[in-house]
Amino acid sequence: MLLTELARRIGAELRGAGAALEIQDICALADGHPSAVTYVSAQKYRSALRATHAGAVILTPALAGDAPCPCLLVDNPVLAFARAAELLHPRRRAPAGCHPSAVIAMSAEVHPTASIGALCVIEEGVRIAAGVEIGPQCVIQRDSLIGAETRLVAAVTVCERTIIGKRVLLHPGAVIGREGFGFARDGERWIRIPQIGRVRLGDDVEVGANSAVDRGAIGETVIGNGVKIDNLIQIGHNVEVGEHTAMAACSGISGSTRIGKGCTIAGAVGMAGHLEIGDDVHFTGMAMVTRSFAEPGTYSSGIPAMSSADWRRNVARFRHLDAMAKRLRRLEERVAELQEAQREQAD
Amino acid sequence: MLLTELARRIGAELRGAGAALEIQDICALADGHPSAVTYVSAQKYRSALRATHAGAVILTPALAGDAPCPCLLVDNPVLAFARAAELLHPRRRAPAGCHPSAVIAMSAEVHPTASIGALCVIEEGVRIAAGVEIGPQCVIQRDSLIGAETRLVAAVTVCERTIIGKRVLLHPGAVIGREGFGFARDGERWIRIPQIGRVRLGDDVEVGANSAVDRGAIGETVIGNGVKIDNLIQIGHNVEVGEHTAMAACSGISGSTRIGKGCTIAGAVGMAGHLEIGDDVHFTGMAMVTRSFAEPGTYSSGIPAMSSADWRRNVARFRHLDAMAKRLRRLEERVAELQEAQREQAD
Amino acid sequence: MLLTELARRIGAELRGAGAALEIQDICALADGHPSAVTYVSAQKYRSALRATHAGAVILTPALAGDAPCPCLLVDNPVLAFARAAELLHPRRRAPAGCHPSAVIAMSAEVHPTASIGALCVIEEGVRIAAGVEIGPQCVIQRDSLIGAETRLVAAVTVCERTIIGKRVLLHPGAVIGREGFGFARDGERWIRIPQIGRVRLGDDVEVGANSAVDRGAIGETVIGNGVKIDNLIQIGHNVEVGEHTAMAACSGISGSTRIGKGCTIAGAVGMAGHLEIGDDVHFTGMAMVTRSFAEPGTYSSGIPAMSSADWRRNVARFRHLDAMAKRLRRLEERVAELQEAQREQAD
Repeated sequence: MLLTELARRIGAELRGAGAALEIQDICALADGHPSAVTYVSAQKYRSALRATHAGAVILTPALAGDAPCPCLLVDNPVLAFARAAELLHPRRRAPAGCHPSAVIAMSAEVHPTASIGALCVIEEGVRIAAGVEIGPQCVIQRDSLIGAETRLVAAVTVCERTIIGKRVLLHPGAVIGREGFGFARDGERWIRIPQIGRVRLGDDVEVGANSAVDRGAIGETVIGNGVKIDNLIQIGHNVEVGEHTAMAACSGISGSTRIGKGCTIAGAVGMAGHLEIGDDVHFTGMAMVTRSFAEPGTYSSGIPAMSSADWRRNVARFRHLDAMAKRLRRLEERVAELQEAQREQAD
Repeated sequence: MLLTELARRIGAELRGAGAALEIQDICALADGHPSAVTYVSAQKYRSALRATHAGAVILTPALAGDAPCPCLLVDNPVLAFARAAELLHPRRRAPAGCHPSAVIAMSAEVHPTASIGALCVIEEGVRIAAGVEIGPQCVIQRDSLIGAETRLVAAVTVCERTIIGKRVLLHPGAVIGREGFGFARDGERWIRIPQIGRVRLGDDVEVGANSAVDRGAIGETVIGNGVKIDNLIQIGHNVEVGEHTAMAACSGISGSTRIGKGCTIAGAVGMAGHLEIGDDVHFTGMAMVTRSFAEPGTYSSGIPAMSSADWRRNVARFRHLDAMAKRLRRLEERVAELQEAQREQAD
Repeated sequence: MLLTELARRIGAELRGAGAALEIQDICALADGHPSAVTYVSAQKYRSALRATHAGAVILTPALAGDAPCPCLLVDNPVLAFARAAELLHPRRRAPAGCHPSAVIAMSAEVHPTASIGALCVIEEGVRIAAGVEIGPQCVIQRDSLIGAETRLVAAVTVCERTIIGKRVLLHPGAVIGREGFGFARDGERWIRIPQIGRVRLGDDVEVGANSAVDRGAIGETVIGNGVKIDNLIQIGHNVEVGEHTAMAACSGISGSTRIGKGCTIAGAVGMAGHLEIGDDVHFTGMAMVTRSFAEPGTYSSGIPAMSSADWRRNVARFRHLDAMAKRLRRLEERVAELQEAQREQAD
C-alpha cells in the first residue's frame, strides 16, 4: 500500500517526502525496517524515534521534528497504528458454512453467512446470527444466542441460555455461563442451589483464554458493551460490569458485585462479593478490594517485593503493628508529661 | 405446582392464605412476581421482605410477621429454597446412550443408562457407571472410573487412572489428574519425575470451570466427599482435602498440603506446600498461608485497597518497619532514662 | 528388574546385599514395600529412612549408614530416582498415525512417526515433526510448527503461527499463542490492536493445565529452552523467559517483561509489565513484583495469614503507618530536646 493511501485511510496528514513509498507491514520502533510503518506514543521514546529504521512513523505533530523518516500526523498514534495494522494485516475470515464434522442440532438456526468450524457442537435451540465465526471445537449449549459478527476462536464453551452480543470475541478455553458457585448448608453438607439465570454479554465484549463468566443464580450476569476481559479471569454469578471497563489477567470478581463504566482493573485483583464500584474507578495490580468504592480514583494495595531478608524482618514487625501503635501513643503521653514537668521546673 | 404441594415437598409449614396458589417459578426477593416463590435468610432483608411482590416466601417463623404474602415456614430457608428451585426447575437429563460422534475404545465399559455426549473421547479401560452424564467434548483417558450419577458438563478432561465418585459434578475446562509439577535438578536443567499416582475424587465433589487437580507423584491426590471447588483453582499433587471443605475461585494449594474437614477457603487464597490445616479452619479472601494452622478459627492476611496516594506513603514506611520498631524501642529507653533522671531531681 | 541392573542403569553404586533382589516399582519412603525402590534426599528424613519397608533406597553415601535395606549410592538422589521411575514406569507411546476422527487439512504435513489423537483439528500449513504425540481433542491452528518428540496430552489449543521446539510437553487446556491483550483508546472505547506476532517455545519446555501464553503484538513471546510453566499461569504478549526458569501455579507475567535464566517463581506471583528480571532471581509465593530486579537473590512480599482478629487490628494501623512514622520522628525530636535541656540543667 502506498504511504499516501495509508495516510488517507487512517486519517493522518503525511509530512515529509515518501508519498510514493510502498508500505507492506507494521513494525516496532526499535526493529524498524524501510517498508514498514511504526508509531511513537510518548516523549520518552524520542531518542528511539531518532534511531528508527522504519519507513514511516505515526505520531503527533509535537514529535515530528525528531523523525528521520516520513511522518503520519494524528492526534492518537496508538489508535491510528491499530487501524494501520488492520489494513496491512487483514484477518482471514473463515468461509461461510458448517464444517461437515460439526454436530449441529436440528433445531439450531445457523445463518447462512456464519461459519461453524470443525468438530463443534451446536445444541438444540441455539441461534447463530449473520457473519458469526465459530472456530474448531467450540460447544454452544442449548438455547444460546450468538450475535452478528461475533467470533469464537477455538475450544470455547458457551453454556445453556447464554446471550452474546455483536462483534464479541471469545478466546480459547473461555467458559461462558457456567452454573455459579451457590450452595445451601445442610448440616455439614453443601447442597447446590440451582442456578437458573444466565449470562448476557453486550456488544464488542472480549473474554480471554481460560476465563470463566458464571451465570446468574436468578437473573443475569451482565457484561456491558465494550468490556474487555483478559485471560484467566473469574466473574462470579450476578456480577454486573459497566460499559468499556477493562480487566487484566488473573483477576477474580466475586458474586453480585457491580462495577461501573470505564473502570480499569489491573492484573490479579481480587474483589469480594456484593460490592458497588462506581464509574472510572481504577485498581492497580494485585489490589484486594474488600469494600465498595463509589468515588472515581485510583486505589491500590499489596506490599511490593523486597529482599527476603528485609521482608522477613518487616513482616515480623507487622504482626505487632497494633502493639507498636499503642507503645507509640504511650510514649507520646510520657513525653508530654516530661515536657510539662520541665516547663514547670523552668518556671 | 400448588403452594400446598410445594410446602409438603420441601417440608415447610404453610402460613397465611394461598393454599390454592399456583407457583411456577422461583424469584429474587426484590424482583418478585406473584406466581413465584422467594426466600429471606436474614433480618437485614426485613424491609425488602415487606416490599416483595413474590407470591410466597420461604422464611423462619421469626420473620413471618413481615411477609406481605403466604409464608412457608422452615428452619433453614436457603436449603428449602434450593429444594424448591430444584422442584420448579428440574434439570433435563441427557438421554441414555452414546452419541454416534463419540470415540469410545473397545475396552471401555459404559453402563447402558449412562449418556455420552457428542464428540467425546473415552479411552481404553475406562469404566462409566449407571446414570452418568458426560456432556459434549469431554476426554476420559485410559483406566479412569466414573461413579454413578456423576455429571461432566462439557469439555472436561479426565487424565489416566483417575477415580471419580458418585454424584460428582465437573464443569467445563476442568482438568482432573494431570501429571503434577515434579522435577529433579540436573545441573541447571529440570528433569521431570514421572508422576505415577492418581487423583481420587470422593462422592458429591464439585470442580469448577478451568480448575486443575494434579495427580499424586506417588500415591493419591484425595478430594474428600462433598468438597466443593470453584473455578480457576489449582490443587497440587498429593494434596488431601477433607470432607465438605469449600474453596472459592482463583485459589491455589501447593503439593502435599493436607486440609481438614469443614474448612472454607475464600477466593484467591494461596497455600504453600507440605502444610497441615486442621478441621474447621477458615481463610478469608487472598490469604497467604505459609505455615500450618491446626486450630479451628478464622485467619486472614493482605492489605485492603486504599487510595493509591495513601498506599504509596504507607508502603514506603513498611519497607522500614523493622527500623521504625528499633527506633521506637530506643526512644522508650531514652524516655525511661529521662523519667528516671527527673524522678531523681524531684527527690 | 534386578537391583544390580537398576543400579547400573541409573549410575548408582550398590551397597549391601540384595544384588538378586527384583525391583518392580517405586515407592514413597513412608509407604515402602519390599519390591520397590525409594529415595532419601535430606538429613531430616533420617528417622523415616530407618523405618522404611522399601526393598532398596537411593541416597548419598552420607545417609547410607541409616538404611535398613540395600543402598544405591549416588550424588543426586532425586535425579537418580526420577530415572528409576522412568525405567520402572515407562510411558506408553501412542501408536504412530492419525486417528480417523481427526480433521487434518490437506496442506498440513504430519511426519509418519507422529501420532494424532481422536478428534484433533490440524489446520492448513501446520507441520508436525517426527515422534510427536498429539493426544485427543487438540487444535493446532494454521501455519504452526511442532518440533520432534513433543507431546500434547489432550485438549491443548495452539493458535496460528506458533513455533514449538523439541520434547515440549503441553498439558490439557493450555492455550499457546492467543492474540494478546492490546488495545488503543478511542474516546471511551477500546479498539483491538491486531496482534501479528507469535509464540516461540524452546526445546524441553513444559506448559501446565489451563495456562496461557499470548503471542507477541509485533515480534515474539519467547519461552527459552527447558522452561517449566505450571498450571493456570498467564504469560502476556512479548514476554521473554530465559532458559531453565521454573514458574509455579497461578502466577501471571504482564506484557513485555523479560525474565532471566535459572530463575524460580513460586506460586501466585504477579509481575507488572516491561520489567527486567536478571538471571538467578527467585521470588517466593504471592510476591508482587512491580519493579525490575537485576541482581541474583531471593525476593518476597505479602503478609502471611494470622488470626483475623489480629489481622484486623494490624491492618487498621497499616492504614496510618505514614502518620505513625511522622509521629515517631516528632517524638524523637522532642526527646532530643528534653535530653538537651536535662544536660544543660545538669551542667
